[in-house]
Amino acid sequence: MKRSKYMKILVPLDGSENANKALIHACDLAKNYQSFITIIYIAEKPTPLNLLDKKEYMKITKRFGKKILEKGKENALKRGLDAKAILKEGNVADEIVEYAKNDNTNLIIMGRKGLGKATRFLIGSVSSKLTNNSPCSLLIVK
Amino acid sequence: MKRSKYMKILVPLDGSENANKALIHACDLAKNYQSFITIIYIAEKPTPLNLLDKKEYMKITKRFGKKILEKGKENALKRGLDAKAILKEGNVADEIVEYAKNDNTNLIIMGRKGLGKATRFLIGSVSSKLTNNSPCSLLIVK
Repeated sequence: MKRSKYMKILVPLDGSENANKALIHACDLAKNYQSFITIIYIAEKPTPLNLLDKKEYMKITKRFGKKILEKGKENALKRGLDAKAILKEGNVADEIVEYAKNDNTNLIIMGRKGLGKATRFLIGSVSSKLTNNSPCSLLIVK
Repeated sequence: MKRSKYMKILVPLDGSENANKALIHACDLAKNYQSFITIIYIAEKPTPLNLLDKKEYMKITKRFGKKILEKGKENALKRGLDAKAILKEGNVADEIVEYAKNDNTNLIIMGRKGLGKATRFLIGSVSSKLTNNSPCSLLIVK
């Protein structure tokens, strides 16, 4: 296997323990395969709120996302890796697919549960969506 | 990460190019993590055939499965690995989950398309099912 098969690893974070576990897996693989790690947080737009609440919600969500990414960078640094951090707005699965396509990601590593608002009702909806739509290999960590 | 995180790798085979690709990924990871590889073929039971046809169908399917497993063992051996080969009967996703549970598999590696009869109609149905039901981490290779 060429080193380039795992050259670019993307790890979606959401502040959950499962996402953190996925990041630890990613760091280990990155060391073995000399890969670059990008961590990404997607601020999901709220649905049934008025405009004022919407803005406030997005502000808070983005602030939360920045903290998650900072913590992710710290966790990677502890393992000797300098992760690139990306903050996006929109639908979680769609934005991950979009970023992975544009950045030529080779491998997405994520936790099975805990990602996305929808998981409150439907376990693993984001990982299920990515199973079908990911433009690259996908490692779902348990 | 402890070596044991990828100690037992399970690779479902179905004769497709994608499954073969998954096996090559598995061999590479196995070398890096000193893992054991098991390859598995599930002979799916047919649905609307008469009893005679059913028996004949299963006989042919199992014979096919054995060949696929032999080829898988050869492919692994070429890469210096002695893979264990398992032949099962039943529903593809269910049997993979069952085997992984009983064998304490740490990682399932599979191709995204090409596994199972249902993929003729629904792309990636087995990988979708495993996304939600796998008892361990799952790497879907593209």
